[in-house]
Amino acid sequence: MNRWKKISDAVVRRLPLYLRVLDEASSDDDRQLMSSQELGQRAGVSPALVRKDLAWFGEFGKQGVGYEVGFLKEELRRILNLDQEIKVCLIGTGSLGHALVRYNKARYEQDRSFQMRIVALFDNDASKVGTQFEGLTIYPFEDFAKYCRELDIRIAIVTVPAEAAQHVVDRVVDANVRAILNFAPVKVSVPENVLVATADLSLELQRLAYYLEV
Amino acid sequence: MNRWKKISDAVVRRLPLYLRVLDEASSDDDRQLMSSQELGQRAGVSPALVRKDLAWFGEFGKQGVGYEVGFLKEELRRILNLDQEIKVCLIGTGSLGHALVRYNKARYEQDRSFQMRIVALFDNDASKVGTQFEGLTIYPFEDFAKYCRELDIRIAIVTVPAEAAQHVVDRVVDANVRAILNFAPVKVSVPENVLVATADLSLELQRLAYYLEV
Repeated sequence: MNRWKKISDAVVRRLPLYLRVLDEASSDDDRQLMSSQELGQRAGVSPALVRKDLAWFGEFGKQGVGYEVGFLKEELRRILNLDQEIKVCLIGTGSLGHALVRYNKARYEQDRSFQMRIVALFDNDASKVGTQFEGLTIYPFEDFAKYCRELDIRIAIVTVPAEAAQHVVDRVVDANVRAILNFAPVKVSVPENVLVATADLSLELQRLAYYLEV
Repeated sequence: MNRWKKISDAVVRRLPLYLRVLDEASSDDDRQLMSSQELGQRAGVSPALVRKDLAWFGEFGKQGVGYEVGFLKEELRRILNLDQEIKVCLIGTGSLGHALVRYNKARYEQDRSFQMRIVALFDNDASKVGTQFEGLTIYPFEDFAKYCRELDIRIAIVTVPAEAAQHVVDRVVDANVRAILNFAPVKVSVPENVLVATADLSLELQRLAYYLEV
C-alpha cells in the first residue's frame, strides 16, 4: 500500500479534524474563507502546523486571504477517500455495537457527504443471527468472508468482548479487510499490511480531568 | 481556572496518549526506559514534539537514556489530576450510555490506577428512574443539581439525543459541573469557564479511509 509510508500518520490523523472544523463553519454561518489561524485554533493545533500539514497535499491557501472553505473541504474529502461510498461492517452487536450503528446512521442522514456506511452486522449468537437491527440484517460471523466479498466491505468495526477480539480480528484479516476500528479494550496483532485503529473512549475524559481544580 | 490559559490544549490532548503508550509498555514487557523516539512513534507524533510537550511540565528525560517509564507515568497522572478519584456522571441511559458505563467499569477493573469512575446515572424517563444499571441507580434528571452536590461530581458525560443536548448542558452548568464530555452529535454553547469535549466517533473511521486503496 503505497500511501502508507509517505506521510506521517500524525498528519493523517489531523485531516478529519480540519474537515470537521470546515464542515461546522460552513453549516453554521455559511463561511467562505478561513485563515490558518482560525482553523488551527478551532482544531486545537498551531496555525503553522495547519499550513505544514496541508502543504503535504498541495497549495490550498492564499497568502493573506486564507483557505476557501468549500474547496478545501472537497480536497480533504478526496484525500481521505471520502468522496466515494465506503462500506463498513460491525462485528459484535452488544450495546456498544447498537450505539455505533445508530450513531453512524444519524451521522449519515445528517450529512449526505459522509459516505461511510455500516451495511452489515455480524454476531455469533444464534439468537441474534437473522434478526434485524436498524434495518440491517445480523449475519452469522462464520460466514464473514463470504459476505465481505459480496458486499465489498472495506472497514470492520470490532465491538466484541476483549477475550474474543484477537480471534475475530484474525478472521477479518483472512477475509482481506485491511482496516479495522477496534473498540475491544485489548491490543490485537495484525500483519504489517493491515491497519488497526484503537478507539479509546477514555482519552477525552483524561484530557478533561486536566482542567479540573481538584 | 488558572490552568486554562498557560499551556495549549493541543499539548494537553497529547498527554493521555503518552500515558497510554507508557501504560502499555510497562504492562506488556515491564519496560523501564523509553526514548522520546519510541514514545513519539507509538503515540503518532515526532520525538521533538514529545520532548517539547513534556518540557512544559518539567525535566523528565535524561539525555541519551530516555524517560524512566514508571516515573513519567506517575508524573503524567499527577499533571492530569489522575492521581485521585474523579467522580463522573452520565446523563441519558440509551444504548450509547449503557455501552459507556460498561466500558468505564471494565477499564476501571482492568486498571486500578484509572480513577475516573461513573458513579451516577440520570435520565428523564420515568420508567427508568429508580432502576439500576450495572449496579448504579438511575436518578431523575430534575434532581441533577442535588445529586451532583451530594456525590461531588466533577465531570458529566452527555449521551442524550441531539435535540435535548443544549437543555441538558444548561442544567449541568447550573449545577456547577465545569467539564462535559458531549456525545450528542450537536454543538452546545457554554460559558467561558466550562469546558466541553466533543466525542466524535467518526474521526477514526475517516482516518482509516485514508489508507484504503479505493
